[in-house]
Amino acid sequence: MNLTINLSHIVANYQLINERVAGGARTAAVVKANAYGLGCVEVAKALVAAHCREFFVANLDEAVELRSAQKDVTIYVLDGVTCTTAAAMLEHNLIPVLNSLEQISCWAKSAELHQKALAACVHLDTGMNRTGLGADETALLIAEPWRLSPLNVVLVLSHLASADLVDSNQNLEQLSLFRKYRQQLPLGAASLANSAGTFLDSAYHFDVVRPGVALYGGNPAPHKANPMRQVVSLTAPLLQVRNVDRGDRVGYGATHEFSRKGKVATVPLGYADGFFRSFSNSAFAYVGSVKVPLIGRVSMDLITLDVSDVADSALYVGAPVEVLGTQLTVDEVAHNAGTIAHELLAALGNRYKRCYVYNRSEQTQNK
Amino acid sequence: MNLTINLSHIVANYQLINERVAGGARTAAVVKANAYGLGCVEVAKALVAAHCREFFVANLDEAVELRSAQKDVTIYVLDGVTCTTAAAMLEHNLIPVLNSLEQISCWAKSAELHQKALAACVHLDTGMNRTGLGADETALLIAEPWRLSPLNVVLVLSHLASADLVDSNQNLEQLSLFRKYRQQLPLGAASLANSAGTFLDSAYHFDVVRPGVALYGGNPAPHKANPMRQVVSLTAPLLQVRNVDRGDRVGYGATHEFSRKGKVATVPLGYADGFFRSFSNSAFAYVGSVKVPLIGRVSMDLITLDVSDVADSALYVGAPVEVLGTQLTVDEVAHNAGTIAHELLAALGNRYKRCYVYNRSEQTQNK
Repeated sequence: MNLTINLSHIVANYQLINERVAGGARTAAVVKANAYGLGCVEVAKALVAAHCREFFVANLDEAVELRSAQKDVTIYVLDGVTCTTAAAMLEHNLIPVLNSLEQISCWAKSAELHQKALAACVHLDTGMNRTGLGADETALLIAEPWRLSPLNVVLVLSHLASADLVDSNQNLEQLSLFRKYRQQLPLGAASLANSAGTFLDSAYHFDVVRPGVALYGGNPAPHKANPMRQVVSLTAPLLQVRNVDRGDRVGYGATHEFSRKGKVATVPLGYADGFFRSFSNSAFAYVGSVKVPLIGRVSMDLITLDVSDVADSALYVGAPVEVLGTQLTVDEVAHNAGTIAHELLAALGNRYKRCYVYNRSEQTQNK
Repeated sequence: MNLTINLSHIVANYQLINERVAGGARTAAVVKANAYGLGCVEVAKALVAAHCREFFVANLDEAVELRSAQKDVTIYVLDGVTCTTAAAMLEHNLIPVLNSLEQISCWAKSAELHQKALAACVHLDTGMNRTGLGADETALLIAEPWRLSPLNVVLVLSHLASADLVDSNQNLEQLSLFRKYRQQLPLGAASLANSAGTFLDSAYHFDVVRPGVALYGGNPAPHKANPMRQVVSLTAPLLQVRNVDRGDRVGYGATHEFSRKGKVATVPLGYADGFFRSFSNSAFAYVGSVKVPLIGRVSMDLITLDVSDVADSALYVGAPVEVLGTQLTVDEVAHNAGTIAHELLAALGNRYKRCYVYNRSEQTQNK
């Protein structure tokens, strides 16, 4: 099975976002969860070559892996810091995203201990109620600014909960609250926009935008045509073809029954590879240029396709079957499983050979 | 995050199945997909110590990994063989599960080339229409037995499509067809039962049973109490606690709204860790002894819990939150995401530290 990752397209997507926010904001890259399953080290290397200098990861382990490959970039750690991880954060020159007064206190103590104004990012929640200082903690922080004085606050951020919902009032509510907080706490640069926020109007851009899924080809504005390039292509070799009769049933629980004579192709790809069981009877693949439906349940290591309409000459063992690519975009495929591109990408499994392509001409083309 | 895998319980489950089929059949272990996400090498080592000698994996890569750790066991490769993989199959002393006349021909050619009766397993499909020789190919094989003469057929198998459905006629249909095939092709040992088949009556056991999910704690007979021991425990440290007011909303898309004052706990675990997005607003966790509901959407790296009913003293940063364990079984948890234990286990991600425990007294207890 070949998972091909087009690094030129990631770079082109990065450049497209850079142009979109040009003049106002700079673009940091979100490479958490192993760059959404695509390989953090490889993705970061391509982005650094394209002059990206700031990266967001989820936790310390991810940060240490990225730091070992990139000595000079800024790395923000979204989970923040605890008293047990502070020493490692310092050692690897990482910037914690401080999500609570407790985390601020912990990082401030480290700063005092080392007599150094440690760089910090402060996360003020504006209504998502997931991480970040809530309204009560933010009010206390604004009333007691000494809490931050041992630190060098380089960035203050918040996170949009509904930026992909074009009709949501929550975007304006969060924007308004973030602006108010910025007036009361005008430290460092400001950042509000994830991928979807970057494609809202420029009021959401502030000083730093933080795209993730858009870099990897997901549509940041689902109500419009996708401006991003597809990054991922996934093909698996055809394992077996069989003839079936009318009445023959396929797979676990016999959930598909043939109403006519036909042909079934089996492909060695299943939910252990992140090809969700919820694709059962509701996904598609390409055999050559023919789009064919997935039939029956997805198994752990296998899927079955109705290839009755494919010419026998195209149905040979080893024939490449595409399940993700330019014809089957990450958004469209994810939708078939009732989920979003983010989960589809992050679930891409370990049994694939990840192959990276970098095409300079394509990248230039997009500039 | 700690993913604890109790190898004693895997061994106890293996022994329970051995006892169930005692006298009639031997038990091979299905360790494909990295032993359902739990670690093929570690699981196989524990099972070999418990005298298991036969293993099933999905493909050549998995087989080579297992062979490098276990020199003397029998390894069956479910995907079978192609002309390009035959040499490696031979080199690593693997037994392909031959799924088609084309695969039989390919392995027979290798046997002739090396002037050696190569061990083989033949898969006759009995109605699943996924892999294995279909009715047409099986008829041809029976009419032309010379096709197998260069080989040493050690096992003939088929696979049940609906063994977990107690009312399905398909079980009896497949059993009847497999018996007929065995009369016409009485080579080697016979195997029909997966985990669920092993817990149907003994007519389904034949010479070899092939449990997978039951070894790892999944219920092989969902209409009855689960006789298997739970194997997996997954805990993550509490990252943050916040107070919320009536009307406050949580997470992406603001899908949960508080109807009273309360508390939200955030835990650094998300769909990038295989904790499916379909758990959004429909899963549970334990904070100490209190069962709490997951609220809002599952994010890539985070989940949010309603901990309003948990005492403040139990809500400290780093407190262990259990999302899978003896109180939250793999079947129950999988069901909350609309899936089965197999997918839940196989999707367990790479950001966990896998910790193996082996408790000799517990194992003895179960004997």
